[in-house]
Amino acid sequence: MKIAILGGTGKLGQGLALRWAKTHDVLIGSRSIEKAKSAAKNYLQSARRFYGKDFRGSIEGTENLNAAGQADVVVLSVPYQGLSDFLIALKPRVSEEQLLLCPVVPMMKTEKGFVHTPFKSVDLVTKRLQIRSVAEAVADELPPRGRVVAALHTLSSRKLAQLGRSLDCDSFVCGDDKSKIVIADRLIEQLPGVRAINIGPLSNALQVEAATVMLQNVTEFSGIREPVIKIL
Amino acid sequence: MKIAILGGTGKLGQGLALRWAKTHDVLIGSRSIEKAKSAAKNYLQSARRFYGKDFRGSIEGTENLNAAGQADVVVLSVPYQGLSDFLIALKPRVSEEQLLLCPVVPMMKTEKGFVHTPFKSVDLVTKRLQIRSVAEAVADELPPRGRVVAALHTLSSRKLAQLGRSLDCDSFVCGDDKSKIVIADRLIEQLPGVRAINIGPLSNALQVEAATVMLQNVTEFSGIREPVIKIL
Repeated sequence: MKIAILGGTGKLGQGLALRWAKTHDVLIGSRSIEKAKSAAKNYLQSARRFYGKDFRGSIEGTENLNAAGQADVVVLSVPYQGLSDFLIALKPRVSEEQLLLCPVVPMMKTEKGFVHTPFKSVDLVTKRLQIRSVAEAVADELPPRGRVVAALHTLSSRKLAQLGRSLDCDSFVCGDDKSKIVIADRLIEQLPGVRAINIGPLSNALQVEAATVMLQNVTEFSGIREPVIKIL
Repeated sequence: MKIAILGGTGKLGQGLALRWAKTHDVLIGSRSIEKAKSAAKNYLQSARRFYGKDFRGSIEGTENLNAAGQADVVVLSVPYQGLSDFLIALKPRVSEEQLLLCPVVPMMKTEKGFVHTPFKSVDLVTKRLQIRSVAEAVADELPPRGRVVAALHTLSSRKLAQLGRSLDCDSFVCGDDKSKIVIADRLIEQLPGVRAINIGPLSNALQVEAATVMLQNVTEFSGIREPVIKIL
C-alpha cells in the first residue's frame, strides 16, 4: 500500500514512516522538497538497519501535494495552524478512492495549560452554536465525507519513532465509511502494541480530539511523560 | 470526614458509598427520603458484611438538600437533566468551606452514539461563542469557584459497586484551589486501584467530560464492557 505522510518530517510522521515502511511504500511529504528527501533518506537508513532482510517497503521524500496525489492513504500529519489554506491547496490533488487519516488536534498552550480550540460557528438556519472537530472540517472541505477517518491522535510520537519499542496503547478511530475504517484499523494495528478502538461516526471525532488535549495536560500538570491511553 | 453523595441511590453513588464508608461517614442523598434511607440501609449491610471489624465509618440516608448541608464534601452524583434547577435549590444549603465534587457529564444518546452536549453561550462583550463544562457551570452557580473540583467521571460505576473488586484505572481531576484538590485526590486514591491524575484548572474540565463521552462510545461501537481509562 502506498502511504503519503503529509508533514512527514515531524515526530509523528517519522514514527509512522519507520513503522509502516517495513511492508508499505511510504512517501514523506513536506513543504520543502529538500527537507522531505533528507528526512526520507534518514528514515530509510534507520528502517533498513533495524528490519534487515525483513524490510520490504520503501521511503521516499517529495513535496506535500505531490505526495498526496500518488498515494492510496494520505495522513494529515500537519499542524492545525494554516490547515484551512492547506486543505484548499490539497483539494484538487486528492481522489475519492483515497483514505484520508486525520490525527490533527486543535489546541493552544496557555497559562492554564493546553486548551482545546475546535472550530465554532453558528448554524444559519437553526441559529444554534456548532462546534466542529478538525476531522469534520476536513471532510467538509474535501468531500466525500466517508474518505476521512479520524485516528492516530493519542499515540506517543516519541515512542513511535523509537524502533524496537512496543507502544502498548489504544488509538481511537471514527469515520462514516466502514470500508475505509477497515483499512485504517489494519494500518493502526500494524503499529506494534497499538490497538484500534472504534468510537463510531466521524461526528464523534470531537471527543477524541478533546481527550488528546487532556493527555497533554496529564503531562503538564501530573508530570507523566509521553502518556498514552489504554482502555481496560 | 463527612461525605454527602447527592443522587446517592444511583450506581456511582452506591459504589462510592460502599468504598468510602469503610472509614468515612457517608450520607446518601435522594429526592425521596424513603429511597435514601432504604438504599443507605442496604449499603450499610453490604459494607458491614464485607469489611467486618475493619468497618469504621457509617452510612445514613436523607433528602438531598439536607444531606448537602451537613457534609464536608458534597458529591454531585446527579443527572445532567434538571441540574440547573437543582443547583438553584442547592445554593443556600452549601457553605464556602465545602468541597463540591462534580462527576457530571452532559451527554445524549442518539443514533450516532453518545453525543457530548456541553453548555453553549455567546459572550455578550466579546461576541465569541463559549462552551462551558458542567463543572464550570456549577462553579458559576455556586461560587466561590475554588470549592468545585471536577473528578470521578471515568470510573466504572459497576466495578466500583462490586466490593472486593480493584479498579485499576485513573480518575482525572481539575480545579482551581490546591487545598481542595488535595482532599479530592486523597478521597479518590482511597478507592482501591484508582489513581488521581491532575489535569490543571477547572477550565480543563470540558476535556475530561468529553473523554467520558468517548468512553461510552467505546462500549457502544467496540463492545468493550465497563471500560475505564488507564494512562501508561
